[in-house]
Amino acid sequence: MDQTALVDLARDIDQDLAARLSFVLEIDKLKGVMRRNRLVDGSRPENTAEHSWHLAMMALVFAPMAGADVDVMKAITMLLVHDVVEIDAGDTYIHDEDGRSTKKQREQAAAERLFNLLPADEAPEIARLWDEYEDRATPTARYAAAVDKLQPLLLNAASGGRTWSEHDVGHDQAMAANSPIAVGSPPLWDLAQAIIGRATDHGLLIDDRPTNH
Amino acid sequence: MDQTALVDLARDIDQDLAARLSFVLEIDKLKGVMRRNRLVDGSRPENTAEHSWHLAMMALVFAPMAGADVDVMKAITMLLVHDVVEIDAGDTYIHDEDGRSTKKQREQAAAERLFNLLPADEAPEIARLWDEYEDRATPTARYAAAVDKLQPLLLNAASGGRTWSEHDVGHDQAMAANSPIAVGSPPLWDLAQAIIGRATDHGLLIDDRPTNH
Repeated sequence: MDQTALVDLARDIDQDLAARLSFVLEIDKLKGVMRRNRLVDGSRPENTAEHSWHLAMMALVFAPMAGADVDVMKAITMLLVHDVVEIDAGDTYIHDEDGRSTKKQREQAAAERLFNLLPADEAPEIARLWDEYEDRATPTARYAAAVDKLQPLLLNAASGGRTWSEHDVGHDQAMAANSPIAVGSPPLWDLAQAIIGRATDHGLLIDDRPTNH
Repeated sequence: MDQTALVDLARDIDQDLAARLSFVLEIDKLKGVMRRNRLVDGSRPENTAEHSWHLAMMALVFAPMAGADVDVMKAITMLLVHDVVEIDAGDTYIHDEDGRSTKKQREQAAAERLFNLLPADEAPEIARLWDEYEDRATPTARYAAAVDKLQPLLLNAASGGRTWSEHDVGHDQAMAANSPIAVGSPPLWDLAQAIIGRATDHGLLIDDRPTNH
């Protein structure tokens, strides 16, 4: 039995069930999409499925750091879904300018293929959730995006900043790349700034801060 | 910088933030807890963090297969949290009778250590979510449990049933072990029964079905 045989089996029961199952089986591939940053203990790179779980947990646990206008439950579902497109489009590193220029287009094509595995009445629901996240136009999407920026910062700082040194990332670049945290959650931005400062003190980020005057 | 240094840094900002951060960093270890079953493509065993993500996504996508009395959003948060105790207690295989006899006690101790990393007002909230899941006393917990049973069945069937053959699992044992799906979601139980039947036809489960009469 393989993925197709299981979906065929479900189709004998119900067409809607089979469509949902085909999506559920296909997204298993997210466990094989590797990210640049390593786990907290530095043992290996993180994959996007476990990353998505960690983000959803963070959105739950840091809920008091979200504004009153944030729907935390919706942020959690957004974070579960938001990286599924990497199954086709791959992970794009925050400091990879070339990759970032084609990211939108690659991810849009992936969203169309993957979400359309779902039944016709469900696909637009999930696509809307993904679009809301991508557009960052709501407080909920901005809180979710803040969590998505903070997590690799935490893992990178805890595991020796290897992806920073591999890409010659400096303090100012890290501050700019992580600045969406400021609009999504001011308390988490306080934390992020403190971490970027300390990581620079420790030499994990190139120290291009202006000298004291 | 390590996990402790990051929490100390957060403590300089705010005690509550530091407690939440210590939990967020500690649960990263769930990515290193390995389960028996393999991914859909059979390439490697699954870890519990990516498993938890997959369950949360399944709870979302199979929502129409939940009863009207199920709070799907709560089921999602339950599934995100429910296996965190495996950081200390490890994963207990569904067909491991010895391991299952001490499971409750090991997981209770883990829950106390892990949830008490959180601030004093938050720890009981997360503990209550975990307790509700463990007790299976609500329709929401039973739906979450159904998804948690169905997922390894899917992965096992898709990847050649290796953990079944390693443990000489038969049709009747698989039916009994997965029967909680029936009370959590009748439509998902229809699917599970069809898969167990087909997996037995294919020799992935020992055929101990009564012969036709």
